[in-house]
Amino acid sequence: MTGQTELLTRRAQLLGPSYRVFYDEPVHLVRGEGVWLWDADGKRYLDMYNNVPCVGHCHPRVVAALTAAAGTLNTHTRYLHEGVLDLAERLLGTMPAELGHVMFTCTGSEANDLAIRVAKAATGGTGIIVTANAYHGVTELIAGMSPSLGVGVPAGPGVYVVPAPVAGGKDVGERFADGVRAALAHMFEDEIKPAALLVDTLFSSDGMVCDPPGFLAPAVAAVRAAGGVFIADEVQPGFGRTGVMWGFSRHGLVPDLVTMGKPMGNGHPIAAMAARPAVLENFGKQARYFNTFGGNTVSTAVARAVLEVIASEGLLENAATQGAYLLAGVRSLGSTRFGNTRGAGLYLGVDMIDANGAPDAAAAKRVVNGLRGRGVLIGAAGPHASSLKIRPPLPIDRAAADFFLSALADTLAELG
Amino acid sequence: MTGQTELLTRRAQLLGPSYRVFYDEPVHLVRGEGVWLWDADGKRYLDMYNNVPCVGHCHPRVVAALTAAAGTLNTHTRYLHEGVLDLAERLLGTMPAELGHVMFTCTGSEANDLAIRVAKAATGGTGIIVTANAYHGVTELIAGMSPSLGVGVPAGPGVYVVPAPVAGGKDVGERFADGVRAALAHMFEDEIKPAALLVDTLFSSDGMVCDPPGFLAPAVAAVRAAGGVFIADEVQPGFGRTGVMWGFSRHGLVPDLVTMGKPMGNGHPIAAMAARPAVLENFGKQARYFNTFGGNTVSTAVARAVLEVIASEGLLENAATQGAYLLAGVRSLGSTRFGNTRGAGLYLGVDMIDANGAPDAAAAKRVVNGLRGRGVLIGAAGPHASSLKIRPPLPIDRAAADFFLSALADTLAELG
Repeated sequence: MTGQTELLTRRAQLLGPSYRVFYDEPVHLVRGEGVWLWDADGKRYLDMYNNVPCVGHCHPRVVAALTAAAGTLNTHTRYLHEGVLDLAERLLGTMPAELGHVMFTCTGSEANDLAIRVAKAATGGTGIIVTANAYHGVTELIAGMSPSLGVGVPAGPGVYVVPAPVAGGKDVGERFADGVRAALAHMFEDEIKPAALLVDTLFSSDGMVCDPPGFLAPAVAAVRAAGGVFIADEVQPGFGRTGVMWGFSRHGLVPDLVTMGKPMGNGHPIAAMAARPAVLENFGKQARYFNTFGGNTVSTAVARAVLEVIASEGLLENAATQGAYLLAGVRSLGSTRFGNTRGAGLYLGVDMIDANGAPDAAAAKRVVNGLRGRGVLIGAAGPHASSLKIRPPLPIDRAAADFFLSALADTLAELG
Repeated sequence: MTGQTELLTRRAQLLGPSYRVFYDEPVHLVRGEGVWLWDADGKRYLDMYNNVPCVGHCHPRVVAALTAAAGTLNTHTRYLHEGVLDLAERLLGTMPAELGHVMFTCTGSEANDLAIRVAKAATGGTGIIVTANAYHGVTELIAGMSPSLGVGVPAGPGVYVVPAPVAGGKDVGERFADGVRAALAHMFEDEIKPAALLVDTLFSSDGMVCDPPGFLAPAVAAVRAAGGVFIADEVQPGFGRTGVMWGFSRHGLVPDLVTMGKPMGNGHPIAAMAARPAVLENFGKQARYFNTFGGNTVSTAVARAVLEVIASEGLLENAATQGAYLLAGVRSLGSTRFGNTRGAGLYLGVDMIDANGAPDAAAAKRVVNGLRGRGVLIGAAGPHASSLKIRPPLPIDRAAADFFLSALADTLAELG
């Protein structure tokens, strides 16, 4: 806890009122390596939360690529350079052939903002469908499509909010599509032309809803039938989180636009949007696009290194294997405080419930803080903040998974 | 020109229709050091254009800070860390005491987008005033405040476009304020409450208008009297470009909100918004703000290194000294093709005119491409694309300045 009070005071003074910290006792981190983090007192934490350092904290190969590139040239896409083209080619190589172009930004927010601009230009529409507790980013446009930011940040013009799919619910896909069809009917009544369905293909901030794979298809079909496009927000599911490269492929879908960010540079600010060429065409006619740092020589070298590490270390396979082990391990704890438990690769969602089966945010908070005390970092999410969010870097091994399961068992025992 | 055609073909295929390159013969860069760049054929270029690598391309101290930080910990502001606080403190130390908080983003676009959200929350207004050829960024919100993107990207709702100040014009400040007052009157008629005047304090994309220092004050006073705030977009002028740290101080003003970006990380994606605490208060009540990469441990280490280099190498003084030398040198060429010539530190604007004194975009283009052939990179800007934009990294020395002046003289001679 060295200097924690002082740091919190300085934060409030310097950064102002919009910043938040995690945990009742915030963590003061000073070092990271692989799936481990250390605080200023030398205490070690197993990182079961951060999806950004997807190949592990401070991966030496990624740091080496960053160092080499930053020492050679750091400049932008208005000069020719191969790096941005090689990265675009590799990214497209991981996607269905229908996706033909990539544009680079620095953040997932910028990628989603761009995708909405592109969707509007492609369709001539302005209506956007998002889920009830969605989070897609922080620009004014995208904050207006992120109901999880709370009532202080209302939905923007043309934004229609639909019920999120329910983890463990009945007829998940058809019920979700019912909501989407109702929103399309409201757009029609309002004389708003549909532009896009924008969803995180793992519904992370809605509490993580992954099953059954394929459930998104009827909703996407309804949007396309109404003239809108499907934007897969892969900022959370992308880059192997689910044990496959992209979350949309779990649903058997080929999106019109794909956005990606967080894990793309293992912490380095790079993000992107992939597009079907026909969908990008109108935007290209109307607007040039230049993002000063987006696709620069350094960022693209880092992102290439991340893709190489994912492949060379077999991290998709590891995510699938260790994810299944973790899910089985969580379930085997047999806690009466668990409602639905689910996982897709290394993204697990566990609903905490009370004795009546109702969402229990207080219990989730106690588990999150209890694990923090035991040296394990996780988070909570969902509409009631009652779903545990378990999402380690992809190279987690069996020993670390067991460490987590043991700490979780102890925390649950304490919870009673 | 090794492989240039192939690279252009791959770009169009992979990146799609919204990307542009500089120069009739695009430059394929492979290395940078100080104020120099090298292409794939080993040809050397003097960089008289790029303001992003403000302390010089690949500055070893900045690269070392990046490497050390990236190898230690790369994580975000929801954990405690001192780096983001130290940076905020140092930045605020370069500004008037009224500016008390800093929030971090990754790009100038995100910083301007956030500033508009904050201005709206602070004033309850939605009316925004920008100049006729302004460029402030690429989010949908900010693209709608960037008329320089062309007719394909129309002004957004509540955006009022005013005539830019005229370089070398009469009564620059009063005439600019007249336009701002007219826009405020139109807002009043339209029942739109004013939120902000958003200007680049160097009016870069309007052709660079810097004189007389102080001319912005009457317009800012008019906006404040109408209940709006003043957002100084320092993405171009900030970090010493004009020979002082911030462009707003040349105008004797203390902004309500300050946005910054491009040179802040010498190419690393970091940007920020500084605010008067009272102006940030309402936004803080309404919204939390989290930018995954904004203010992370690595970005903030890089930005601190940039500030240290600016101080330790005396780059503000160098910008003032070499800028004055360059401006005098350009004027001493006595070209009849030059209209108004102006400079503020290391940002020079030179209007190219034809025999009748009219803006001459073709001549500007010939100079830009002629200099490229002679190994010097500059650009053109302004409403007619007829103003030369000369803007080297801050550590330029006398010999490099002479190299530029000699190449410019040769290019002008060829122009006739």
